[in-house]
Amino acid sequence: MKTLLVVAHGSRRAESNDEVRALAQCIGAQASAEYGTVACAFLELAEPSIPDGLRAAIAAGAKQVVVLPYFLSAGRHVVTDVPGEVNIVRAEHPEVEITVAPYLGAAPELVGLLLKQAAGN
Amino acid sequence: MKTLLVVAHGSRRAESNDEVRALAQCIGAQASAEYGTVACAFLELAEPSIPDGLRAAIAAGAKQVVVLPYFLSAGRHVVTDVPGEVNIVRAEHPEVEITVAPYLGAAPELVGLLLKQAAGN
Repeated sequence: MKTLLVVAHGSRRAESNDEVRALAQCIGAQASAEYGTVACAFLELAEPSIPDGLRAAIAAGAKQVVVLPYFLSAGRHVVTDVPGEVNIVRAEHPEVEITVAPYLGAAPELVGLLLKQAAGN
Repeated sequence: MKTLLVVAHGSRRAESNDEVRALAQCIGAQASAEYGTVACAFLELAEPSIPDGLRAAIAAGAKQVVVLPYFLSAGRHVVTDVPGEVNIVRAEHPEVEITVAPYLGAAPELVGLLLKQAAGN
């Protein structure tokens, strides 16, 4: 079973975290053929943490987990913090394949999406 | 003349701000038929500020400016701060049409883009 874990920064504002949760649900609805589960986790300020999100996926039977950093820029969080959190669980579960996808801001399709967004105005 | 102003939060990390500048250039290269200029501005921690970015566009001849909030969630920044900064310049230049597009995180295409991003892994 393959799980997609959308990882966001986390916010003091509950609605922002709920937006990420809703996004994960929406992705899950569109990608049920590819991912048994789509869930989310947060680097800080919200639950579950990245290790707890990974552990929950593994406890539910995931043999492969793709971690998707929902971040716009390649700062410390993307370069150091997210991989560090992932490594904690890699060490606990060497039998599970955990990969980290490129962060959202690195997507070449972002340019076209932003132009659409601007035109929708 | 129509200008697109990509508005980001701004970071203490120069590379993150440069990523936004590079994105604006990239959008400009793809959308030169639609926008005379594509530039960027920052809510805080980087230059130009949103009012200064708008003023520069207007000084360069823009009669219409579309402000595109490069934010993932509808927090205080998107709901209150960005529109507040925009209103400063609206008051200074009532002859210029300044509109604020929906923020990036509101784009329905984000789901498909994230799935592509996850699969590219």
